[in-house]
Amino acid sequence: MLVGAPGTTAAGVFTTNRAEAAPVTLARRRLATSGGRARVVLVNSGQANAATGARGLSDAEATTASAAELLDVEPDAVLPCSTGVIGEPLHVEGFLRALPGLAGALSEEGGDAFARAIMTTDTVPKSASAESGGFRVGGAAKGVGMIAPSLATMLAFVTTDAAVASADLDRLVRETLRPRFEAITVDGCPSTNDAVLLLASGAAGGDPVVPGTPSWAHLQGAVDAVGGDLAGQLIRDGEGATHVVLVEVEGAADDADARAVAKAVADSPLVKTAAFGADPNPGRVLQAVGAAGVDVDPAAIDVSIGDVLVASGGVIPPAYFDAEGELRRRAAEAMAAPEILLRVRIGDGPGRSRMLGGDLSYEYVRINGEYTT
Amino acid sequence: MLVGAPGTTAAGVFTTNRAEAAPVTLARRRLATSGGRARVVLVNSGQANAATGARGLSDAEATTASAAELLDVEPDAVLPCSTGVIGEPLHVEGFLRALPGLAGALSEEGGDAFARAIMTTDTVPKSASAESGGFRVGGAAKGVGMIAPSLATMLAFVTTDAAVASADLDRLVRETLRPRFEAITVDGCPSTNDAVLLLASGAAGGDPVVPGTPSWAHLQGAVDAVGGDLAGQLIRDGEGATHVVLVEVEGAADDADARAVAKAVADSPLVKTAAFGADPNPGRVLQAVGAAGVDVDPAAIDVSIGDVLVASGGVIPPAYFDAEGELRRRAAEAMAAPEILLRVRIGDGPGRSRMLGGDLSYEYVRINGEYTT
Repeated sequence: MLVGAPGTTAAGVFTTNRAEAAPVTLARRRLATSGGRARVVLVNSGQANAATGARGLSDAEATTASAAELLDVEPDAVLPCSTGVIGEPLHVEGFLRALPGLAGALSEEGGDAFARAIMTTDTVPKSASAESGGFRVGGAAKGVGMIAPSLATMLAFVTTDAAVASADLDRLVRETLRPRFEAITVDGCPSTNDAVLLLASGAAGGDPVVPGTPSWAHLQGAVDAVGGDLAGQLIRDGEGATHVVLVEVEGAADDADARAVAKAVADSPLVKTAAFGADPNPGRVLQAVGAAGVDVDPAAIDVSIGDVLVASGGVIPPAYFDAEGELRRRAAEAMAAPEILLRVRIGDGPGRSRMLGGDLSYEYVRINGEYTT
Repeated sequence: MLVGAPGTTAAGVFTTNRAEAAPVTLARRRLATSGGRARVVLVNSGQANAATGARGLSDAEATTASAAELLDVEPDAVLPCSTGVIGEPLHVEGFLRALPGLAGALSEEGGDAFARAIMTTDTVPKSASAESGGFRVGGAAKGVGMIAPSLATMLAFVTTDAAVASADLDRLVRETLRPRFEAITVDGCPSTNDAVLLLASGAAGGDPVVPGTPSWAHLQGAVDAVGGDLAGQLIRDGEGATHVVLVEVEGAADDADARAVAKAVADSPLVKTAAFGADPNPGRVLQAVGAAGVDVDPAAIDVSIGDVLVASGGVIPPAYFDAEGELRRRAAEAMAAPEILLRVRIGDGPGRSRMLGGDLSYEYVRINGEYTT
């Protein structure tokens, strides 16, 4: 349970999956009806409360109503988030029994316990903080992606003691936090439950922070830092990941084209298995670029692994296939790094994008092959 | 080397990957300039001759010119196909040295040797034949997909002794063979080298077969049977596959929507790992349907595993989570079958599609993590 001081504003972005979970539907609706005045987030792990129909919605309403009563806030001020098995109904009775204890144990020091409580297949809790211009920003997250989280669902919660009007907070979520979480992908599968929420308590005092001011720039910087930090932690703990793969695309006609190419490379199972095997394989990157559904000129594609140019003008230099050669040795070294950088230039356009992904390992197959529903 | 009798017509479809290989460019061009009069197919495995630039094109021209001279046909009558490592230049010298032996060993009994010669990571050779209305149809294929082949590339060659004008043969490829190979997916990665070629020798005698006649129906049936047979063999030998997954989608607004949903389910790493682990997980199917980029009403989604309805109106019955329950037991049984059927209804529309895929296993990761470029 995450609770902001009275006067807290809230904003959020949610999964684009059409089969969204009941808590997503309810949280989205409450942010709208309350005019962004929500100040409580109630998270459970174990059941996703997705594919649960009308019962799922009433279960989310019942549990949040009970929390609202305990905390003496309007039901609309409580945003539910769930993560776990899709289809399994919430364990409402146990949930309701646990709430008084949770409400009684609220503490300003509870961030670590919160980060731990929301974990599912995460192997480490994920939290981050930043300060700038007198504002404090903190956050916690779980799961493995937003565009592309596993069943485990990506949830991220960021709080600040700045005062921000709800419309401006919404802008901060969309312009600053969303891009951070949209730039990560584990397996190309957007969950039914993804949510990124930002709460601003105003506890720092002072007038509300408004866009276009130096205070806004400070706040934005701190929110961006926390968002970037959490997103990186999510990818490093991606299911079975042994390497992080950073894909940078430039020279596209526009950012959308660049993003499509970056995502195609980062999600390609052939690139991901090459990253796992530390195999410096430019052909697989070219394959993914060519299949991205973007109008690229193959003769204009340059690919680098780290700082090693492995394809130029769409051609892999024949010397590359000399297994003892210097070029191959350097590329192999760059491919074995814990963080692998793949840079792709696809022309002279202004469009660019970055995508952070992971490799595809035996462990990913084990986790997802043996995940007991 | 595959050689048709004088008078043979040829038609084909090729990869949609923008970074297409030199042999694809050349074969596509020759089918056009010769008016479909090609009658020789020259295949090598080992080097894909992709990402090889101008040199790749001239290597393909040199090797096919040598074959043309040996066989006394126009260079335009020879269609090159390559499969193997992307970027590595053709070993032209060895290639040219091998051609006279190949030409000398041509035999009507050589189908099995051909099917074996084109293998790369295939574990078994793939061939099929059918007869109908006095026409014989035979084929061989290698690789693991068309929409979605691995680096190993999907190549398929189908021949018939019917006489067919090249424009009609082109229609037969597009209407009958292409859908068969577009309905399979191993890992969502269209290769730089995919090709499906159909050659008609006319050796059966008689007038050319034309659309709309009973003879056409016989020929189409036999071509369809061979195409379907080869496509199934490709999937069963998909890299690391331990299960075949057949996804049937119906009730979509149109076939394109149905196809997008079927492909999203068949390519989902979460569905594929569930198939590997024999985990009857309806939530993962719902996740994939909701994320397919198609405008679906979540409350209209039904999912069956085999003949077991595991989600109805977007809701997984709570009884499903009784691990000892009958519903779960039957679904688990259907999920453990060598061929798993996933049926998805997404509304009342006329659109439908079928997609054949495989599971995602440790072996897929091993093959692709250890593939030495």
